[in-house]
Amino acid sequence: MPVPRYAYLGPAGTFTEAALRQVASPDEARYLPQTDVVSAIEAVRSHQADFAVVAIESTAEGGVTATLDALAVGEPLVLLREMLVPVGFTLVAAPGVRLEDVRRISAHPHAWVQCRRWLAEHVPGAVHVPATSNTAPAALIAEQVASGGGPQLAFDAALVPPPAVAHYGLEVLAEHVEDNDRAVTRFVLVGRPGEVPPPTGADKTTLDVHLPSNEAGALLDMLEQFAARGVNLSRIESRPIGDALGRYSFSIDAEGHIADERMGEVLIGLHRVCPHVRFLGSYPRADDVQAVVRRGTADEDFVAAREWLRSLRAGRTH
Amino acid sequence: MPVPRYAYLGPAGTFTEAALRQVASPDEARYLPQTDVVSAIEAVRSHQADFAVVAIESTAEGGVTATLDALAVGEPLVLLREMLVPVGFTLVAAPGVRLEDVRRISAHPHAWVQCRRWLAEHVPGAVHVPATSNTAPAALIAEQVASGGGPQLAFDAALVPPPAVAHYGLEVLAEHVEDNDRAVTRFVLVGRPGEVPPPTGADKTTLDVHLPSNEAGALLDMLEQFAARGVNLSRIESRPIGDALGRYSFSIDAEGHIADERMGEVLIGLHRVCPHVRFLGSYPRADDVQAVVRRGTADEDFVAAREWLRSLRAGRTH
Amino acid sequence: MPVPRYAYLGPAGTFTEAALRQVASPDEARYLPQTDVVSAIEAVRSHQADFAVVAIESTAEGGVTATLDALAVGEPLVLLREMLVPVGFTLVAAPGVRLEDVRRISAHPHAWVQCRRWLAEHVPGAVHVPATSNTAPAALIAEQVASGGGPQLAFDAALVPPPAVAHYGLEVLAEHVEDNDRAVTRFVLVGRPGEVPPPTGADKTTLDVHLPSNEAGALLDMLEQFAARGVNLSRIESRPIGDALGRYSFSIDAEGHIADERMGEVLIGLHRVCPHVRFLGSYPRADDVQAVVRRGTADEDFVAAREWLRSLRAGRTH
Amino acid sequence: MPVPRYAYLGPAGTFTEAALRQVASPDEARYLPQTDVVSAIEAVRSHQADFAVVAIESTAEGGVTATLDALAVGEPLVLLREMLVPVGFTLVAAPGVRLEDVRRISAHPHAWVQCRRWLAEHVPGAVHVPATSNTAPAALIAEQVASGGGPQLAFDAALVPPPAVAHYGLEVLAEHVEDNDRAVTRFVLVGRPGEVPPPTGADKTTLDVHLPSNEAGALLDMLEQFAARGVNLSRIESRPIGDALGRYSFSIDAEGHIADERMGEVLIGLHRVCPHVRFLGSYPRADDVQAVVRRGTADEDFVAAREWLRSLRAGRTH
Repeated sequence: MPVPRYAYLGPAGTFTEAALRQVASPDEARYLPQTDVVSAIEAVRSHQADFAVVAIESTAEGGVTATLDALAVGEPLVLLREMLVPVGFTLVAAPGVRLEDVRRISAHPHAWVQCRRWLAEHVPGAVHVPATSNTAPAALIAEQVASGGGPQLAFDAALVPPPAVAHYGLEVLAEHVEDNDRAVTRFVLVGRPGEVPPPTGADKTTLDVHLPSNEAGALLDMLEQFAARGVNLSRIESRPIGDALGRYSFSIDAEGHIADERMGEVLIGLHRVCPHVRFLGSYPRADDVQAVVRRGTADEDFVAAREWLRSLRAGRTH
Repeated sequence: MPVPRYAYLGPAGTFTEAALRQVASPDEARYLPQTDVVSAIEAVRSHQADFAVVAIESTAEGGVTATLDALAVGEPLVLLREMLVPVGFTLVAAPGVRLEDVRRISAHPHAWVQCRRWLAEHVPGAVHVPATSNTAPAALIAEQVASGGGPQLAFDAALVPPPAVAHYGLEVLAEHVEDNDRAVTRFVLVGRPGEVPPPTGADKTTLDVHLPSNEAGALLDMLEQFAARGVNLSRIESRPIGDALGRYSFSIDAEGHIADERMGEVLIGLHRVCPHVRFLGSYPRADDVQAVVRRGTADEDFVAAREWLRSLRAGRTH
Repeated sequence: MPVPRYAYLGPAGTFTEAALRQVASPDEARYLPQTDVVSAIEAVRSHQADFAVVAIESTAEGGVTATLDALAVGEPLVLLREMLVPVGFTLVAAPGVRLEDVRRISAHPHAWVQCRRWLAEHVPGAVHVPATSNTAPAALIAEQVASGGGPQLAFDAALVPPPAVAHYGLEVLAEHVEDNDRAVTRFVLVGRPGEVPPPTGADKTTLDVHLPSNEAGALLDMLEQFAARGVNLSRIESRPIGDALGRYSFSIDAEGHIADERMGEVLIGLHRVCPHVRFLGSYPRADDVQAVVRRGTADEDFVAAREWLRSLRAGRTH
Repeated sequence: MPVPRYAYLGPAGTFTEAALRQVASPDEARYLPQTDVVSAIEAVRSHQADFAVVAIESTAEGGVTATLDALAVGEPLVLLREMLVPVGFTLVAAPGVRLEDVRRISAHPHAWVQCRRWLAEHVPGAVHVPATSNTAPAALIAEQVASGGGPQLAFDAALVPPPAVAHYGLEVLAEHVEDNDRAVTRFVLVGRPGEVPPPTGADKTTLDVHLPSNEAGALLDMLEQFAARGVNLSRIESRPIGDALGRYSFSIDAEGHIADERMGEVLIGLHRVCPHVRFLGSYPRADDVQAVVRRGTADEDFVAAREWLRSLRAGRTH
């Protein structure tokens, strides 16, 4: 049996790699680092990878729009699992650099935003030098050090994920410089459609839904499909459809599994009232919180109601 | 094959008899007159009759509570058909009586109410002598005339249905004395459960539903089961459950047939959220008005949505 | 100061008189007995009485339609107070009559319905002789006894309210023959508009509301006016408007007082979305149950919200 | 009177500058370029500027999260006006560079995303060199050219806004390289609270709202505040509150002005049911589309309803 191939936002040392390690160790899988989430997702579509691991939501930024948009259009893919990774940053530099010398800091824009308060206090006036990824500046420092201090870097220090520190052998100026020490990023394992992972009682279902119109009532109608069956949402985000201002699709995580009767009814309702519904998978929740099942919405309630209807249609009255 | 037996509110000459004649002529059926609607309905339950014809709603009084209540509890029965009968009254008397001599008028209380304005204008000060049915006073006049003017009647004139005039050979004092010349009463044909009449595209479904609680939200939840599937109501009436003030059941006529997908979904929803739902039949509308089918609620919309769900559950994505 | 005059469904001994006695003793008021509730209500409109006491709802029959309809149209009147009277019946006769001799029983149709089970068991086969009121047969028996047994009555016994027994000096054949020993009738004190009784914290508001259309959504919209402000309904009844089948108005008792902010908002909402809203009064509940005030619907929540809005409109931001 | 000071995302040549020019020409205002939208907004809070011009929504990316988040917390500011700017890009380089030589392209990440398809087709394999703003690479090219071709640039070409081309005197390799030629970005003029701009009949109101809980019902309740008053939404976006996954606030643009009665009622309702509501201003729509006023939601409907309520409370009945 071939070793499964995982595309992910590389290189080594990224948060995404930490998420991937929760799924498969490097011994039992091929890690295929990519330059961005779109490439990781496309690698699955083009069969260059079997799975992709991509960030989908962070406490700091909300939904990862590149991921949401890449999943919403193109060849259908499904989410198979979710993984949570705590998000923190370490301020690093080449050996010999002192915190008080730091003027220019390389950081991915998301990292910069998440450390803004710490930086304002400890390195006031520092200039942001944007990086293409969280680990790119770590690699640049490591390279420069390795080359014996070759061409000058465009920055003095960098914000990097903790796993990158050891990997690249960097000097630590300060640890845990993130402003929110409960920050976490949610990653998902993406694959090609196939057997849906079986329900566990603590599942999520991810959907992408367009509304029939932009009226307030249209959004209400869509949400009532969930409320009428007692299905709770754990995430809802509007995304521009992109053809004009004010046209939105909604990316939704709902509590429950497509095999649940109530979730099936929600999907039937959405299919009827919305012009476009994309099912993006049902998979176990990382936090293992069991779904609350309200009165009248358990599987047996639907089965009993359907049996009763069948009986009525056959001319019996109970 | 035995002649079918119909229980109805008799005797000859009632509006109910006029409704019964729309269903079966006296040649092809046995007419079993009853003293009240409860007896007519019970005659079907006890197999003394095959069917009952009873009034269920009138423009003047709304739902006929005796009928609604008799159908709501006891051995289940179903409605098979509805019949409309225009409601008008004739003021009659024994030969020789003149309008200006009339002081006491016998009338069923419902008849009295429906002629109140005409009476106030033309027979001011007339006293109401309540009758047990619309035709009872007609029979009493006929009897007295036949007996050659025996013991004095307790009244001078009576309000009776037009068909009773010829039947009993009465003297007409005034025709069309009803206040509302568009008044109509709706009758239903009641039978024991069996094959449901097939859908015609212009059908009604009658239900009796209890709410889980008396909160305003409970009634909203119940009504949303209809609205969410685009099913319109043509009648809704609250009836006291009878054990305490403020506890209500709802008698409902909904547009459509139990064989319609959207009505089936409404019933499934009601069964889940309401503690008690009694199905009282799906049958053709007397006015033959076709149901309006809103976007996304046609049978094919439900079939397509269910097929899509089945496909998703099987691991396909469309 | 003149003695207040009360019109009510007489004569002495009716349940209505029992309700009236809760309001004013015969010493401090003039009792004006009427033949029906419509006359009692009209007596107030024509200034022949200052107040009327009429039944509005019973456990057995639900809303008293004559009362609801008489209040819904015509010169506006308001409800000032409600009174509860337990409903029971005594089977009475002239002296010497034994239960086993009883064949024909005089009773108001409502009384007959409420004793049906007891009668079926204890006087099987008894024939119903309808009476115009609960006390009319009591008076007839008393008269016949007083006249020394003159012309034969058309009945052998009668169902009468307990207070009528002593008043007319009747023979008791059986007490508490009502089927439901928790039966109760709710009466209201009706007056001409004027100062609204002050809120007590345990109040009711009665309304009559027409819908803009017969669509299921129209009823939902109306009910949402209540639900959106957390106002509960203790009674809702549909009444035919009377011009055609399927056109309904709704008679509603809502928990709370017109002086409450949330009830004021409900009324404003109803006035905007319904073609016709009649306010029939705010008055203390007979059962003294305090209204439940949900989060965000207390008077102070509305006052604070309005104050905040005023501040925003003035260009401040909090 | 002092010249008003405008903070904006500079330098010269940005789309933001084009938006600012719609508000005030450089002759009548002081332009204060900033490095990011947060700095522009903070400049108003710290009184270093009187106004800020910032992007709030784009067809490509939806809401500009940095702007939404900076407005949602901190010292309250308000939106005073909105401006639309069509978004397109020009591929530029230093003189002598040919399209076929281009390997590395500098671009702000948002620009890169919006030209992805064109680039894949015309410069396949090009590497993205992220820039901190749309004009930063233009300035770098201009500098290098001015310096007579000093130190090598890290890129061969750049995606820049059309106005930057002339400003920096750049060589054009290709015009209109954006994938969506209807792309537009919406900018807003931000100021300190004060008099609200008067209603024009074609206005927007921007709000930031927290929900009381994460239940599906909570979002429904919030949206019903709008729907119940016929107020349409032109934008709704969820933003993470940031303390934990799954906790959201909603940034909303609603059609109408705070001076409109229906919008006032919406705000009162939101204040009652939501734990946090921030008013971010009512201002004229850039597209001048008049609000649709549904039946029962015009100012006069509210005024009439309130007048009626006042009358009822005073003891009159109409």
